[in-house]
Amino acid sequence: MGDEERFVIIGSNSFSGAHFADYVLRENPGASVLGISRSPESKGCFLPYKKSSGGRFGFRMLDLNKDLDAIVAALREFRPHYILNFAAQGMVGQSWSAPEQWFNTNCIALMNLASRISGDDYLRRFVQISSPEVYGPCDGVTEENARFMPSTPYAASKACGDLSLYPFYLNRGLPLVYTRATNVYGPYQQLYRIIPRTVLFIKTGKKLQLQGGGRAVKSYIHIRDVCDATLKIARGGRNGDVYHISPDGKGISIYDLVLLICEKMGRSIEETAEIIGERLGQDALYVIDSTKVRTELGWRPGTGLSEGLDEVIEWVNEYFEELKVSETEYIHKP
Amino acid sequence: MGDEERFVIIGSNSFSGAHFADYVLRENPGASVLGISRSPESKGCFLPYKKSSGGRFGFRMLDLNKDLDAIVAALREFRPHYILNFAAQGMVGQSWSAPEQWFNTNCIALMNLASRISGDDYLRRFVQISSPEVYGPCDGVTEENARFMPSTPYAASKACGDLSLYPFYLNRGLPLVYTRATNVYGPYQQLYRIIPRTVLFIKTGKKLQLQGGGRAVKSYIHIRDVCDATLKIARGGRNGDVYHISPDGKGISIYDLVLLICEKMGRSIEETAEIIGERLGQDALYVIDSTKVRTELGWRPGTGLSEGLDEVIEWVNEYFEELKVSETEYIHKP
Repeated sequence: MGDEERFVIIGSNSFSGAHFADYVLRENPGASVLGISRSPESKGCFLPYKKSSGGRFGFRMLDLNKDLDAIVAALREFRPHYILNFAAQGMVGQSWSAPEQWFNTNCIALMNLASRISGDDYLRRFVQISSPEVYGPCDGVTEENARFMPSTPYAASKACGDLSLYPFYLNRGLPLVYTRATNVYGPYQQLYRIIPRTVLFIKTGKKLQLQGGGRAVKSYIHIRDVCDATLKIARGGRNGDVYHISPDGKGISIYDLVLLICEKMGRSIEETAEIIGERLGQDALYVIDSTKVRTELGWRPGTGLSEGLDEVIEWVNEYFEELKVSETEYIHKP
Repeated sequence: MGDEERFVIIGSNSFSGAHFADYVLRENPGASVLGISRSPESKGCFLPYKKSSGGRFGFRMLDLNKDLDAIVAALREFRPHYILNFAAQGMVGQSWSAPEQWFNTNCIALMNLASRISGDDYLRRFVQISSPEVYGPCDGVTEENARFMPSTPYAASKACGDLSLYPFYLNRGLPLVYTRATNVYGPYQQLYRIIPRTVLFIKTGKKLQLQGGGRAVKSYIHIRDVCDATLKIARGGRNGDVYHISPDGKGISIYDLVLLICEKMGRSIEETAEIIGERLGQDALYVIDSTKVRTELGWRPGTGLSEGLDEVIEWVNEYFEELKVSETEYIHKP
């Protein structure tokens, strides 16, 4: 399908955005991708598409908050069939300190883009990458139409971004779909995320801090499976709809996750980790139901956690010289 | 209950805000009210509390978008038991042209206020005046926990305002309740609203334009009933909850509403109105279920439409000299 598909990825330096570029370039040898980010392209150790692009990836450094005119011009020149928005202020805990910044990026800037390009004739689909955090702390398994009860400004800003697009779908012809995936992991992930952080800290001998004893249970899905689902949703989803993306099984506690990595790398968890307190406003677990994308679009997750962790370890080994001198903490840019 | 209750009304020049001030000042002879608006106090023909205040109403001209520090200082000095936020960019059709302005007032400014005052010890309740438009075009009767599907930027901005407050309720101690009422009417209403506009135009001989033939069916509730419900919700509602406020019965088409006013004033509808096209993104009807406020807080609507329309006609007669030279169109201020 679609030899000459053109994709625009807003937030192409993000872990998920960079992997999606890699995925579509591999999946479709005729595809081309224009990546947009407010920051210069990351180092190759964080950009999987560097190995797959073959001249089919272009990059524009543009900021959704500041360069809307230039972004709209770039879109109208490139004429993408698909726009995927991965750009977001993503950190949860930090969002309490300056919530307006989270809202400006995750809601206002996004809505302003929608307001400008809704009805543009080149566009087959606008994919908004949302988050299960919009639902807040949920009991049981959450389906796609659950009520929003965000527990942090980050979660509220993502919920508001989603809602701000909806009128442009209903009344201005924006071919909108939403995706919400559980915690994504894989090679090339930022080092402040628990899996790459654990692997790197084991290799460098730094002590890992486990918040709340690592008791929080999370559901992890490999980024390749998320990309597969996202592409299926972009091509075949129903406009206006939300699609959850989640793995089989019940999730794993952070403690058990770290323990699993320790075992793979031949280290004890006592050597690796120490316990600290609980984060404010951190929801315990998201179990989201992904029956819809499975039944309607024939998607299935293909990579188990153990296999996926092996890939991360392999990636850290391959890029260790670069990674060991890379920033391991999250740095917020307003 | 509560002889010395103190209320802050943000958006005190609004129809509903000004009526709520009037209502609590009449209802509770020990109550005092601080009104806040970005505009100077309106003319007396639009301020019902001018007849009831007896020195118990104070006013501060402050803009939620620009004067947050001064608003927070005023709140901490006045120490209100109840804060009610009626301030909003309210027009639906106009919100397409500059949606960011609607979001700044209805969401960002509101969230910034919540971020500053959450946890303040004087506050018993923060009442956010929301709108049934957050639900979008609904089939059947909508209950309080329905999904948000806003069809206009105005509606999306109200939905986002509601969501932006929620984390501050969940994690920062904001004693938050929401109200959503169907179309409110009564004396002292702005002249661009259909009921006072019809009465005034009949008296001045101006021709009324009926959009879409006046076929849209709306559910109207008298402002006094809404104030009664709002006060009950402020005093006795459950934190984090939404309360709908709606009348008995099924609603009325704009055409039939205008016809009813014509009959009361002895004019034919042909003399009074002409037909024009449909508004974009205008939802046909909101039927919201108000069982919750009725069963949990013992509220009932007390004023029927015919009686309420008589009050509006009486008000236009009383203030006709002022009203006939007042602006009858909505003027958007960014």
